[in-house]
Amino acid sequence: MSEIVVTLPDGSELSVAEGSTVEDVAFEIGPGLGRDTVAGVVDGDLVDKATPLSDGADLVIVTEDSDEYLRVLRHSAAHVFAQALQRLYPDAKLAIGPPTDDGFYYDVTNVDLDSEDLAAIEAEAEEIIAEDLDIEREERPREEVVAGYADNPYKRDILETEAAGEDPVTIYRQGEFEDLCQGPHVESTGEIGAFKLLNISSAYWRGDEDNDTLTRVYGTAFESEEEMEAYLERRREAQERDHRKLGQELDLFSIDDTTGPGLPLYHPNGKRVLDELSAFAREMNLDAGYDPVETPHLFRTELWKKSGHYENYVDDMFLLDVNDEEYGLKPMNCPGHATIFEQNSWSYRDLPVRYFEDGKVYRKEQRGELSGLSRVWAFTIDDGHVFVRPDQIEDEVNLVMDNIFRVFETFGLDAEVALATRPEKSVGSDEIWERAESQLRDVLDSQDIAYDVEAGDGAFYGPKIDFAFEDALGRKWDGPTVQLDFNMPDRFDLTYTGEDNEDHRPVMLHRALYGSYERFLMVLIEHFDGKFPLWLAPEQVRILPVSDDNLGYAHRLKNELDDFRVEIEDRSWTVGRKIQQAHSDRVPYMLIVGDDEEASGAVSVRDRKERERKDVDREAFAAHLRAERDEKRIEPDFLD
Amino acid sequence: MSEIVVTLPDGSELSVAEGSTVEDVAFEIGPGLGRDTVAGVVDGDLVDKATPLSDGADLVIVTEDSDEYLRVLRHSAAHVFAQALQRLYPDAKLAIGPPTDDGFYYDVTNVDLDSEDLAAIEAEAEEIIAEDLDIEREERPREEVVAGYADNPYKRDILETEAAGEDPVTIYRQGEFEDLCQGPHVESTGEIGAFKLLNISSAYWRGDEDNDTLTRVYGTAFESEEEMEAYLERRREAQERDHRKLGQELDLFSIDDTTGPGLPLYHPNGKRVLDELSAFAREMNLDAGYDPVETPHLFRTELWKKSGHYENYVDDMFLLDVNDEEYGLKPMNCPGHATIFEQNSWSYRDLPVRYFEDGKVYRKEQRGELSGLSRVWAFTIDDGHVFVRPDQIEDEVNLVMDNIFRVFETFGLDAEVALATRPEKSVGSDEIWERAESQLRDVLDSQDIAYDVEAGDGAFYGPKIDFAFEDALGRKWDGPTVQLDFNMPDRFDLTYTGEDNEDHRPVMLHRALYGSYERFLMVLIEHFDGKFPLWLAPEQVRILPVSDDNLGYAHRLKNELDDFRVEIEDRSWTVGRKIQQAHSDRVPYMLIVGDDEEASGAVSVRDRKERERKDVDREAFAAHLRAERDEKRIEPDFLD
Repeated sequence: MSEIVVTLPDGSELSVAEGSTVEDVAFEIGPGLGRDTVAGVVDGDLVDKATPLSDGADLVIVTEDSDEYLRVLRHSAAHVFAQALQRLYPDAKLAIGPPTDDGFYYDVTNVDLDSEDLAAIEAEAEEIIAEDLDIEREERPREEVVAGYADNPYKRDILETEAAGEDPVTIYRQGEFEDLCQGPHVESTGEIGAFKLLNISSAYWRGDEDNDTLTRVYGTAFESEEEMEAYLERRREAQERDHRKLGQELDLFSIDDTTGPGLPLYHPNGKRVLDELSAFAREMNLDAGYDPVETPHLFRTELWKKSGHYENYVDDMFLLDVNDEEYGLKPMNCPGHATIFEQNSWSYRDLPVRYFEDGKVYRKEQRGELSGLSRVWAFTIDDGHVFVRPDQIEDEVNLVMDNIFRVFETFGLDAEVALATRPEKSVGSDEIWERAESQLRDVLDSQDIAYDVEAGDGAFYGPKIDFAFEDALGRKWDGPTVQLDFNMPDRFDLTYTGEDNEDHRPVMLHRALYGSYERFLMVLIEHFDGKFPLWLAPEQVRILPVSDDNLGYAHRLKNELDDFRVEIEDRSWTVGRKIQQAHSDRVPYMLIVGDDEEASGAVSVRDRKERERKDVDREAFAAHLRAERDEKRIEPDFLD
Repeated sequence: MSEIVVTLPDGSELSVAEGSTVEDVAFEIGPGLGRDTVAGVVDGDLVDKATPLSDGADLVIVTEDSDEYLRVLRHSAAHVFAQALQRLYPDAKLAIGPPTDDGFYYDVTNVDLDSEDLAAIEAEAEEIIAEDLDIEREERPREEVVAGYADNPYKRDILETEAAGEDPVTIYRQGEFEDLCQGPHVESTGEIGAFKLLNISSAYWRGDEDNDTLTRVYGTAFESEEEMEAYLERRREAQERDHRKLGQELDLFSIDDTTGPGLPLYHPNGKRVLDELSAFAREMNLDAGYDPVETPHLFRTELWKKSGHYENYVDDMFLLDVNDEEYGLKPMNCPGHATIFEQNSWSYRDLPVRYFEDGKVYRKEQRGELSGLSRVWAFTIDDGHVFVRPDQIEDEVNLVMDNIFRVFETFGLDAEVALATRPEKSVGSDEIWERAESQLRDVLDSQDIAYDVEAGDGAFYGPKIDFAFEDALGRKWDGPTVQLDFNMPDRFDLTYTGEDNEDHRPVMLHRALYGSYERFLMVLIEHFDGKFPLWLAPEQVRILPVSDDNLGYAHRLKNELDDFRVEIEDRSWTVGRKIQQAHSDRVPYMLIVGDDEEASGAVSVRDRKERERKDVDREAFAAHLRAERDEKRIEPDFLD
């Protein structure tokens, strides 16, 4: 029997017999590991431990101690939900039920469910967990499986797509329940320590609005009740902070169906935050030697054919016809910037040439996928493109990284960093890829940055470093990026004259410090629970006159703070109600002014952390306010 | 015979016999005026003096001393051109030949002309002028005229549109030449004191690219050679300053056919100017209590149906289909702002509510009409909308006007102001129109502003004040505007709660301080001949090291001026060449630094007016520079 070689996470290689499964390899390594094996991750995909390996595979063994174990457990929980559903609603049809980052869902149909029905299904699921049924992988003749799903077009669709040509077909069975499934799963339903159904929504089959509408039931599962409780607490907190809810309460933005889904309108409060974010990015960009440019939102599709985006993006583009020529709203800003670069002649001494633009881009997501500011049709990237000589890559990436880390620090967000390297299909020579990847590694190493390597996950046009924002609730969101691009300069035939007087090809660098303003605003709203740092707060100070007699003094105070966003609460309310409203509006500072304050020329300062101090000197307060704003401090700290 | 009443420019009314012509009324006023009459302006339209008047007409008598006389003269010059053309090219077919603000053109076909042919035609025209032919108005039976134009589809088109149903038809004749024409004209070809053909281009019949392409010959005419010379000098100057030429020379912007016509890309130099303009408008807006908002460029057309723009604008809109729903790029920003206002509830104490946005709008001009930045498909308005109580109109308009005049003053532009009043077709009660118009008049009068009244020229939704920029060459361009709108608040059912606790309708005010950024940038480029004031200049200071040895000192100077846009000219050129290049780039100040300057720690300052001073103290220069920038002075004045 011939041998194959698999690579383990520590980089070591192991020779095993051809046909060996994940579990076989685990036993090869050691019988304890063999017994503990739940599943495997082969070339990045989570698979059943019975999966045979191919030569050259990258293998990670999954045990109960692995991060991936929870995903396996939740996949089994989805089956437990489906089993419970079918016990209570024998006519219900199952479509698809995968694990997610937070739990699982199952799309079902032919059953009329609302959230009141979930408790009974949950009770039945608990029963199934208590029964501790073995979960068994079985292989069945394809013909038999297809016949069994005669009434279920979704499973048949899966048989013709994901499971096309598979024979025998893999089925998972627990007690009387079975499901078409690739696994992996835990050993028995009893392994699920905590199970909960969360809510119901609707979804299109395959996410495509031309397909059937299905009922989607969301749930989650954990190894223990304690972990479940902690999760539910975080979830309650996240719902409280939901940017769609706060967006309305704090009058930041709106999206409505008359004006168009996925197309946010920013109200004054939201726009003030965006403007501060934009000014901060602008300051960082100008300091780093970037020049501002502005490109249209609408282009002839000729441009996208030249850049190659047309081939890859046309289905996601908003297209229109103008005088029988095809135009499109831009899905990316880079071809516009390349066009500007193209129109000048450059010497090696001029490089790097750096352009930045708050550039709106348009991507036609499915309507069902749109959600608040996190998934929209039109979003603004704090976009920048740099044209560099190959020998300048490292310095330039360092410059970008400095600003990216300044963003993380300024907003008190944690970073998760990943280096994505050369994929199988790629353009550019071995030499330039190796040099570029090693330059990116050197930057990360020299700055002592912890990062994951996502081997083969780079763009076809170059390697990249992706950053995720980790917010106050521990959730991760796509954020800044630095990407090298060897392709676009070729497509646009961009050149500079070298010291040797010959034409050379620059490398293009795509980068964003925030990512998209929409996504970043969403992250900030939720991260701060709407309590923006002073410099970002739409309203920075609210003056609360005790009575109308103090309005004159209130206006004098407002004038003294005319470099701040200050409002006077002049409704005829009690001071108590005024304070309550200011708290609910998340205003960083309140100045309470009554007859005493007016007589002494002082103010009473209250902050949104409910701390208060009387008899404060106005100038001292104003001076503190300026420092707190200019230093972009995160919390109001005058009353510390 | 019954009488009719006509109103003269001084407001007096005159009773004349029914059927009286413009000339009859002039003789009625006095025989001298009667003899001098060339034409008339009736209800705003320039007409032949033989035109009979109707009851209630507004009449202005045109004599050789009137402003309109030149227009009449140039119309006759167009006929002289056509006569000369037909003498030299008997097969040439005439389409249409109107006077313009600067001269005239004639669209012709069936003749192969290039600019080399113009001299011969011009010589023939001079001949016709020397012949001093009488220009005579004749009336002919329609049938005869139609038959005469059997071979000329353009004249037949005119007979079926502008001259539909006219019988007899008016013809003007001079010598052997005659033309279908409504006039008016001067008495004889000899009245044309100076005649010149300027250039040839092509044009579509009726400006519609689906129609025939014609040859357009441009010319001009004046009463005297001196006036012609002065005009040609201004024209040469204007061509030198043409923003398309300077836009390329100074690397400000580009428009090209791959990216799309009418869709400018702003290069760093142009974007820096735009950013300064935007920051200045922002400062004025924030000071005036405006709040920033941001609205999408793309909307469902539902919104435009609601606002009424769909009815009037749909042909000029860029439309697209998204999931079988119609969407459009916005032709105006107002419905977006009304949508934001609509989403809150407002008390009378909250008004005025003021929104501003640098809002891009899209209007599908014919491709042939696109020209540089003056006619584009996408342009950004420094747009603002204010929602006011009717009693607040006057104060609010005053506030807007202050900022508009600040713009004129800041850029050294002269203003032409026009009040446009209620048109026949309009919405809103008599009371609200009268009150609004008188409020606008009061504002203009109280500020001692000279203005024209354009009776009946208001929008159907309200009266407005329009401002034109008059540039350094005396040309006028559309500029700022303040418009009252009684319609949109109705369409959106906008309300505020009055002191009486009832719902009331606010008035909406549309205003722009510049108009469009594209148009304004064009005006500024040509007005300043690319020599932007320091605060606007893309590059404010250029440092010219005498040799590479002085580069270190040059960089030190640059760092000292790090709040300015400073470049170092480090090419290995002679100082003379470096100075020449900086002049041609219109850089306000040059700092020349050689060994002497480096030794003494001083600089040599040169400005773009070619003045120079040695041994200048660096700090004194920097202090001056800051003051010149912050006070937005128009000319570099350090060396005054």
